[in-house]
Amino acid sequence: MAKYVFGIDVGGTTVKCGLFSQNGRLEEKWEIHTRIGNEGEKILPDIADTIQKKMEKFDLKKEDVAGLGVGIPGDVKANGEVMAAVNIHWGRKDVAGELQKLTGIPVKTAKDANLAALGESWKGAGKGAEHLVMITLGTGLGGGIIIDGKMLAGGHGAGGEIGHAYTDSRINQACNCGNIGCLEQFVSATGLVNLAREELAAGEESTGLDREDLSAKIIFDAYKEKDAAAVRIVKKFSMYLGNALAFISCILDPEIIIFGGGVSKAGEALLKEISEIYREHAYKVCKDTPFVLAKLGNDAGIYGGAKLILDSMGIGEK
Amino acid sequence: MAKYVFGIDVGGTTVKCGLFSQNGRLEEKWEIHTRIGNEGEKILPDIADTIQKKMEKFDLKKEDVAGLGVGIPGDVKANGEVMAAVNIHWGRKDVAGELQKLTGIPVKTAKDANLAALGESWKGAGKGAEHLVMITLGTGLGGGIIIDGKMLAGGHGAGGEIGHAYTDSRINQACNCGNIGCLEQFVSATGLVNLAREELAAGEESTGLDREDLSAKIIFDAYKEKDAAAVRIVKKFSMYLGNALAFISCILDPEIIIFGGGVSKAGEALLKEISEIYREHAYKVCKDTPFVLAKLGNDAGIYGGAKLILDSMGIGEK
Repeated sequence: MAKYVFGIDVGGTTVKCGLFSQNGRLEEKWEIHTRIGNEGEKILPDIADTIQKKMEKFDLKKEDVAGLGVGIPGDVKANGEVMAAVNIHWGRKDVAGELQKLTGIPVKTAKDANLAALGESWKGAGKGAEHLVMITLGTGLGGGIIIDGKMLAGGHGAGGEIGHAYTDSRINQACNCGNIGCLEQFVSATGLVNLAREELAAGEESTGLDREDLSAKIIFDAYKEKDAAAVRIVKKFSMYLGNALAFISCILDPEIIIFGGGVSKAGEALLKEISEIYREHAYKVCKDTPFVLAKLGNDAGIYGGAKLILDSMGIGEK
Repeated sequence: MAKYVFGIDVGGTTVKCGLFSQNGRLEEKWEIHTRIGNEGEKILPDIADTIQKKMEKFDLKKEDVAGLGVGIPGDVKANGEVMAAVNIHWGRKDVAGELQKLTGIPVKTAKDANLAALGESWKGAGKGAEHLVMITLGTGLGGGIIIDGKMLAGGHGAGGEIGHAYTDSRINQACNCGNIGCLEQFVSATGLVNLAREELAAGEESTGLDREDLSAKIIFDAYKEKDAAAVRIVKKFSMYLGNALAFISCILDPEIIIFGGGVSKAGEALLKEISEIYREHAYKVCKDTPFVLAKLGNDAGIYGGAKLILDSMGIGEK
């Protein structure tokens, strides 16, 4: 019987890989460069190659490996069909079929943010929760949803696309999805800088934020120093996210909400701001839903990939 | 082997009941009065009594009945635990345990709106869909969600409470849930009248709507007659609902959205208004998600109750 699985997380810059034993222990992790040129045609052969080398190193035969669980930065349907992954230049693509052909090992695919949520629910901040929402606050805003212990992929692979939830049309700039007024346009590193520029244009007092190279980190640092403008900006950011989470809790009613991604490094102070808004507007039985920081960092996706295979085989611990 | 199931839908005025054969045929349906006095203590004995009489009429023994599937107008957890059902004066209550004791037949419970969605997905407008959202537009705004063919109950029984999703604080009246700015305060029969009063207070031209006994029906009738104020009011109502559904589609990505309840009798014209707003703000792959009217009317809940039992027994057609 197969004793190992691989978790693979395809990103725009690197592909993260992990070899797991079937009891869920991460035996080794590593990364390769994502070659996105020529419509990303090298990505799958590169993955097959690195998996092959790792199997040689660990002296594994094909029958020792139950499968590869692969996270894709795009819309992936419940059956694993990849509809599009814009950042790595893929259109509709039979990722599982192609990679299985290259490796001779069963492959399953899912949206990266959903796999990260699955990873956190398995070995991270959501351990033990059957229903959870994970928010990834980075350059953009990602979302992953677990319901009854399973990822919510939706009818067209857009389940958990929280960053593109319609929020407010008052800005006059399109989101990279083509719509105007997506949550990500306010709630993300980019969104925070947008909110800051707006605030600074309206404000009059002097602030350390009035600089060309403004970034999310600079704003959060100023917020920690209690710069008045930075506090107002972070409160506005928190209002957008807290309101959205209050809305989401009425739809999904998660047991826990997990925050990951670079912006979440602003930490507990930021969670407290978001939580205050959330509690005001959340439905009564959801007001005490805990907000927690993610625990697995960049490894959440490879853990989720491993779990996807273990679940599909009905093996491994819960 | 048991050949029958009962579907039961507990409402504030009547309890709707249906006897189904295990192939899903509705053999007989009827209603009894809901006696909500004395903390609703008579409701379960009354149900046990009417079920007993129906079994005598059809000459059924206990072993002929696989179970009773019961919809409750309140928060019900995934394990069937009833947290509260305010309209029928129930607090936390072991409905399944008590009714099972009274009847000697297995009982399963779920939130009424989720059961209605399950019924529509089984025999109604959502036939064949694995992921769907059902909106019930009545005096209030109800919501039911089916994911992977199963009801979404959530961590505290509040899954699908779309009516209490936070929307807009600009009104100064609390919702019956205690919060301010719930979607139901704008999108429901009551919400429509609120929007109309607001519009009429601001407007100047003469309209047939300026009357004491204003109701959702009067507004929709005027809308059909192209009364200018009624058109503006219905467009505002549709904006709130269309925007909310665009948001929801980014979370759940349903294959189909079903509209039931009294207000949905306004029909296809209303769906078209909502759909225009929805398409503008929905995520790209969700823009063409179909909007359809419910088919089972008041019977959706009893169908859902029957299906809940059939699913739990692993019997009956898909």
